Amino acid sequence: MSHQIPATPTHRALPKGMAPACWPGLLERYRAFLPLEANSPIVTLHEGNTPLVASERIHRRLGSNIRLHFKLEGANPTGSFKDRGMTMAVSKAVEMGSQALICASTGNTSAAMAAYAARAGVRCFMLVPHGYVAMGKLAQGLHYGAQVISVEGNFDQALSIVRELSVSYPVTLVNSVNPFRIEGQKTGAFEVVDQLGEAPDFLAIPVGNAGNMTAYWRGFQNYRAAGLANKTPAMLGYQAAGAAPLVLGHTVPNPETIATAIRIGNPASGPFALEARDASGGEIAAVTDEEILHAYDMLAREEGLFCEPASAAGLAGLLTRARVRPFPEGSTIVCILTGNGLKDPQTAIGRVPESVKPVPAEVSAIGRMLAL
Amino acid sequence: MSHQIPATPTHRALPKGMAPACWPGLLERYRAFLPLEANSPIVTLHEGNTPLVASERIHRRLGSNIRLHFKLEGANPTGSFKDRGMTMAVSKAVEMGSQALICASTGNTSAAMAAYAARAGVRCFMLVPHGYVAMGKLAQGLHYGAQVISVEGNFDQALSIVRELSVSYPVTLVNSVNPFRIEGQKTGAFEVVDQLGEAPDFLAIPVGNAGNMTAYWRGFQNYRAAGLANKTPAMLGYQAAGAAPLVLGHTVPNPETIATAIRIGNPASGPFALEARDASGGEIAAVTDEEILHAYDMLAREEGLFCEPASAAGLAGLLTRARVRPFPEGSTIVCILTGNGLKDPQTAIGRVPESVKPVPAEVSAIGRMLAL
Repeated sequence: MSHQIPATPTHRALPKGMAPACWPGLLERYRAFLPLEANSPIVTLHEGNTPLVASERIHRRLGSNIRLHFKLEGANPTGSFKDRGMTMAVSKAVEMGSQALICASTGNTSAAMAAYAARAGVRCFMLVPHGYVAMGKLAQGLHYGAQVISVEGNFDQALSIVRELSVSYPVTLVNSVNPFRIEGQKTGAFEVVDQLGEAPDFLAIPVGNAGNMTAYWRGFQNYRAAGLANKTPAMLGYQAAGAAPLVLGHTVPNPETIATAIRIGNPASGPFALEARDASGGEIAAVTDEEILHAYDMLAREEGLFCEPASAAGLAGLLTRARVRPFPEGSTIVCILTGNGLKDPQTAIGRVPESVKPVPAEVSAIGRMLAL
Repeated sequence: MSHQIPATPTHRALPKGMAPACWPGLLERYRAFLPLEANSPIVTLHEGNTPLVASERIHRRLGSNIRLHFKLEGANPTGSFKDRGMTMAVSKAVEMGSQALICASTGNTSAAMAAYAARAGVRCFMLVPHGYVAMGKLAQGLHYGAQVISVEGNFDQALSIVRELSVSYPVTLVNSVNPFRIEGQKTGAFEVVDQLGEAPDFLAIPVGNAGNMTAYWRGFQNYRAAGLANKTPAMLGYQAAGAAPLVLGHTVPNPETIATAIRIGNPASGPFALEARDASGGEIAAVTDEEILHAYDMLAREEGLFCEPASAAGLAGLLTRARVRPFPEGSTIVCILTGNGLKDPQTAIGRVPESVKPVPAEVSAIGRMLAL
């Protein structure tokens, strides 16, 4: 197909109702709902305001006349939803005069901590179990300038040390026990309502440490209490089958799943997520790694969306649920894609065929391939 | 430092002038300036609307009272500015009835093509030189469902084949010779003006194939012609020293630089970028890989921004220029960070120290480390 060079159309008035894109970051936008004083410092990378993309194809698998939307949290500055909680936690740390942050994490949390610490001009420390973590996993946090402390011990010991350190030393803990994290994360629910014009009927979300499910539920409740939404959604949380303590009813000592971002056996916010489930008339269920990878591929192939494997747990759960219990006709469903697919290139690479047969550099031979 | 659990403040009115975040994608937003008919199909992942983040620290290195902003194009759905051109090119391909797309690319272009092809429900093909490209580089495009055709030949031959194929076969070429790409990309300039309230004095941008510099210049001109900006910026383009044909004045047969996204020896839009330079009173200059990596680190450590190495060429150029010719006091400068740092994890990993000494799991020992 040939192209004509397009002429630039003459100026017509810009569509009404589309204000210039002056997003100030989520703390400024949702200040009225957050624990901020008028003079609180704001540490922001203009996180939030992430796209809510309507499903083109997958919605048909969930029932008749379903409105399905995906919230692309991987579009946040460090590539995951963790930025929402971190802008809040780091802003409050700076407000309290903190000069250093600390966490025990090897993934999205440490990357977000390190980015906001750099932005704030404070130091930060990542505690990791020695020998257990590949340097590659730490690269993003290190690049932002975090200092790694490699501890002779396991992850639980590292977490217990950072908790103790934050009590005795002038360093702020930003692991999920920091209550400001959930306050920031609840803004995801505000955005969903603002973007849809109303709360959805169902909200599907991956569950690892259970903080995000807790946060969305709080956000929907805040908005309804303020009269900005008329309802709250049923909260549907999905854990990986190998790391499903909230489904099993007990902690999992050695959680295993390809969805590393939700590979957690003892979720800090577990009780709150169970409360959200019950109060909202939702569910917390398990999906297998196979179902997660199937949803991960489907999102890319059928919708053009590349998320990290853990993010696909929400869709995997929706597909599983719809097979046994179709969603009511006309339902609106929002599925949170928590992190960017580029966070975990290894999983994408691993699913690629190892070699591709070369073909001769001839137009006609290659042309015939296009028709296959 | 200990935390108090924050109470959710009671609802106060939302700040004025902050419309709900209903960004429809850049084609709808800037329809008046784009070659679209009223009934043109729109293939969108809600690209654009990327953050414009004010510098906290680096601005001081450029002169007195400088307003420096970074445009985070890595927040686009596939992680680079290429999405702007691809939403336009793929929408037009669908409008013309195309059922297949093709390009010769191993990087950001093929990833964007594949995502929008998946979104549109059309097939797409990536032609790559056999044996020259690591499968890892292709993973993102393959994950979206692109078909790879590995050609016995070099990159130039692959490009020549896709050009011929698009003439003789029912397949749309979306390499940079597709004129709709630049039309979509010019919306980056519109957003900069909308976000700042006026065009900046200087626009710094990496130059590889030179399409993006061409596009931004066209966008600024469109906005001034429409009365939406009172001026246009001086366009400052920066090439990598090992791939600087527009600086040298001749093509570079074997371009070499760590900034792979601008490793191009014969830029398709070269003449237009030179025109933008001259008409705007700007420059196109070269920066070394060392300067690029220095800027790449500085962005992460001093601003909390993680971009791919090529994206740092713009800041490297600004820093170099300021050393010999400071920017006028009070200047407003916008620096385009073209791609997400997660696109090139190898460079970040390569700059990380190989090993970290383990420490005993003792609070007091680790506490002493925090003070160092």
